[in-house]
Amino acid sequence: MRRWNGWGDDTIEFALNDDALGFLAQRIGKGLPVADAAFEQACAQIAPSRLPPHALVDTSAEVRLRSALGQSLPDWLRLRYGVIGTAPDGVAYPESPEQVRALIDYAQQFGVALIPQGGGTSVAGHLTAPAGAQPVLSVNLTRLRQLHYLDTESQLATFGAGVFGPDLEAQLRARGYTLGHFPQSFEYSTLGGWVVTRSSGQQSLRYGRIEQMFRGGKVETPAGTLDIPTFPASAAGTDLREVVLGSEGRLGILTEATVRVTPLPEYEAFHAVFFPSWDAAETAVRQVVQAGLSLSMLRLSNPLETTTMLALAGHKKLISALERYLSWRGCKDGKCMLMIGVSGRKAAARAALRDALVLAAPHGGVHIGRKMGDKWKQNRFRNVYLRNAAWQHGYAIDTVETAVDWPRVGTMMQAVEAAAADALAQHGEKVHAYTHLSHLYAQGASVYSTFVYRLAGDYEQNLARWRTLKHAVSMAIVENGGTISHQHGVGSDHAPYLVAEKGELGLSAMQALFNHFDPQQTMNPGKLLP
Amino acid sequence: MRRWNGWGDDTIEFALNDDALGFLAQRIGKGLPVADAAFEQACAQIAPSRLPPHALVDTSAEVRLRSALGQSLPDWLRLRYGVIGTAPDGVAYPESPEQVRALIDYAQQFGVALIPQGGGTSVAGHLTAPAGAQPVLSVNLTRLRQLHYLDTESQLATFGAGVFGPDLEAQLRARGYTLGHFPQSFEYSTLGGWVVTRSSGQQSLRYGRIEQMFRGGKVETPAGTLDIPTFPASAAGTDLREVVLGSEGRLGILTEATVRVTPLPEYEAFHAVFFPSWDAAETAVRQVVQAGLSLSMLRLSNPLETTTMLALAGHKKLISALERYLSWRGCKDGKCMLMIGVSGRKAAARAALRDALVLAAPHGGVHIGRKMGDKWKQNRFRNVYLRNAAWQHGYAIDTVETAVDWPRVGTMMQAVEAAAADALAQHGEKVHAYTHLSHLYAQGASVYSTFVYRLAGDYEQNLARWRTLKHAVSMAIVENGGTISHQHGVGSDHAPYLVAEKGELGLSAMQALFNHFDPQQTMNPGKLLP
Repeated sequence: MRRWNGWGDDTIEFALNDDALGFLAQRIGKGLPVADAAFEQACAQIAPSRLPPHALVDTSAEVRLRSALGQSLPDWLRLRYGVIGTAPDGVAYPESPEQVRALIDYAQQFGVALIPQGGGTSVAGHLTAPAGAQPVLSVNLTRLRQLHYLDTESQLATFGAGVFGPDLEAQLRARGYTLGHFPQSFEYSTLGGWVVTRSSGQQSLRYGRIEQMFRGGKVETPAGTLDIPTFPASAAGTDLREVVLGSEGRLGILTEATVRVTPLPEYEAFHAVFFPSWDAAETAVRQVVQAGLSLSMLRLSNPLETTTMLALAGHKKLISALERYLSWRGCKDGKCMLMIGVSGRKAAARAALRDALVLAAPHGGVHIGRKMGDKWKQNRFRNVYLRNAAWQHGYAIDTVETAVDWPRVGTMMQAVEAAAADALAQHGEKVHAYTHLSHLYAQGASVYSTFVYRLAGDYEQNLARWRTLKHAVSMAIVENGGTISHQHGVGSDHAPYLVAEKGELGLSAMQALFNHFDPQQTMNPGKLLP
Repeated sequence: MRRWNGWGDDTIEFALNDDALGFLAQRIGKGLPVADAAFEQACAQIAPSRLPPHALVDTSAEVRLRSALGQSLPDWLRLRYGVIGTAPDGVAYPESPEQVRALIDYAQQFGVALIPQGGGTSVAGHLTAPAGAQPVLSVNLTRLRQLHYLDTESQLATFGAGVFGPDLEAQLRARGYTLGHFPQSFEYSTLGGWVVTRSSGQQSLRYGRIEQMFRGGKVETPAGTLDIPTFPASAAGTDLREVVLGSEGRLGILTEATVRVTPLPEYEAFHAVFFPSWDAAETAVRQVVQAGLSLSMLRLSNPLETTTMLALAGHKKLISALERYLSWRGCKDGKCMLMIGVSGRKAAARAALRDALVLAAPHGGVHIGRKMGDKWKQNRFRNVYLRNAAWQHGYAIDTVETAVDWPRVGTMMQAVEAAAADALAQHGEKVHAYTHLSHLYAQGASVYSTFVYRLAGDYEQNLARWRTLKHAVSMAIVENGGTISHQHGVGSDHAPYLVAEKGELGLSAMQALFNHFDPQQTMNPGKLLP
């Protein structure tokens, strides 16, 4: 069953062995585990529903609690400590666009705020019910999950927007196709969620971001239905898909999405390459990505992330042997790990890998083969369970991510890590911060930093630690010219920083656009725009 | 010098020899040449300017006439027959974003309508001054032409938005780079014009559409300056670049654009392949484009376009020899010509061409080498001069273009040609209509049809013929689910058909967005939205 106060399925554990815990203790001190609140205790906090009755709406406390929050650290704190705060007054599970339409009309009629919800994996506070007198209805879209149409000639598939990643891929795989969108949240996130938050998958180098995949769809808005047809390209004014992408529920509810699909690749492999230093690695990956090779993934860990991943891997002997070999090949303390993915026709994929290795070699790149890559693939949706394990041992894990053009990549990485390292000094705590470039482009890269720090004893202190850290690293992003999110969206947590990149005029234009579709501002109020 | 009433430079002629004229006469009758109005005669029609004086504004009749119209057929009719109609009350040539700002403020203060203008190559009526009491100022942006910054690490270049194609490429070439955007209008169109009309170049298969190239920029709007920073990617809400793309001057004036550039390709070649039939050719090109090969261009002519191009080429003996060879290889009456472009590293380009030819072979594809391709490249910006030559012999040439998903491509081509063939029957005239797929995508293709028909004696009759034909083919596009433009934009001529793809809600959202930036609606009023 899905965890109510953590990541994923409650039968799956990510174990941290003594060596791994020792590594963390040495870095930031021994963790201080806290007792989690019980589900019943949290349920008891759910206030009576203020919603007028509706056949599609479930107002039970249990269902409302499970829809109240996402996966951000403040969301976790509320769940783990049982400080629930606001929750929706009810949850609806529409099974058709017509039922979504009916729910919007109901919300308009009774002045109800609507929070569209897919898999609930937001790490930016998209799902929190606003405080205040207005009743709040969460609209869970996961029953809109059917593959309606597959056009193999145009390589387009139309799905109900609430389909989960594995369900979507299974329906396509049965027909020989794939979407190829694999964010780390893949198992619990939905197509509609990916579209409205501008998600990016691990193999975006081959398959593109969700922006490139989303070809058309249907959106129910308070002002009516927006029906966006598919064209291979168009010069006819504003691209209405772009109005939907990144709209985070502010203008309506995406009920149906047509996406670009491709035949399943004949061959897929992930290979690891180590570099002796960050500078060498960054130059190499820039040259590789700008060469336009047919790779499916490039993912570069900085020295501290490389060290951390090897330390947490849990195979001390194997890792020691690897490190001795790498050291002999020139990759010592400052070494960086690059993961290269290739997918497609076997000959072409292997040729692309060969070309990438040729470009990497002059920068000291050491190819160690497929073994670690296969392991990475096997665990690609499992690593996120580390958050649960770390929590059990008294550690919080949070992340931020941005993207910048190449000249700013190294500076950004250092600035974010430096801001994090200092952030909790006032609380007398250290932060273990490490970074990888998760998505590479000819123009630049996403910079994805992870922070591990110790939990405080109580809710308020933990929230204060998170706020201090989040603000420090967000300001580092803004001051170094990064976007406030490369792949997670804005929600509540990033909204204060959005003006730095959009400007007041850009923000007010977004507001004007959303107001046109939602004049009463009942759609996900308070999210995305400050 | 640039022609005031036709395409391009007046020293360049595209000759139509007797064989070519015989071909047209046989198809649609002998053309009836008409005498063109003199420049002075047209100038005399320019009414006194109604603009309050401004240091940057030129109100001379000659300058206003040269800025009054674009290159659409109704624009040509007005120029050729000297029926000028409305013209701007003045033309400004700002040399900096600050001067553009000053002109917008001036327009706001005095209630002047502004028409932003790049190279003036619009074929959709973007440049026509609206009738009515409001004075109209055309803002010519071609003095904003400098390369401000080239970031070779991120492969980004920032230009003044009024830079012409050849000037832009020359500035980049001197530094070893190219933008790679080559629409047929390349020699006379500008970067800013490409962005705000969502242009697509002939080698978009390699370089992308202008949407993919445009990475950020500055827009002066009545509500203030919109400054869009560059990021390799972002999940932070609405992509403001998409607000500018396809805005056709309705929200402000793009003064500066940052575009993605790439190192000049080491190798470039264009090859011709013939197929025995349309069905074989269409299947082959779909398979080729869906294979994701590193080609730079695919351009497929249908049988009638193939015949027409060979007939108008003017090398009867050579063409006869070619046709005998093709006939022997199975490409007879219904043959179709495909042009394949490759660019990049020599080995990779040749490998991609080889792969494409392997995919074409089972569909009867006959590769005839580089000769015709080289000829095509040499004439890629010259073919458009055919319009001038045809006019001199009494023929009008017009085009429409759309894009549809693969299952609709053949149907669309037939529907547009059939609509054109019947359109002028009520006028007792025939239309010679032929088509090519100008841009190919995994999802579908653009369908680009050309119409040749005889000029009538007077302006009104010609306008009536054009209106009948344009409406018939536009309705064929709409009824068959195509976009009203794949690469030319909307302007005035396509605006009535836009609702079919955007819906009333989509159109009103575009209007709300533009009104936010331009509350007084002084920016290019009447264009894009009906």
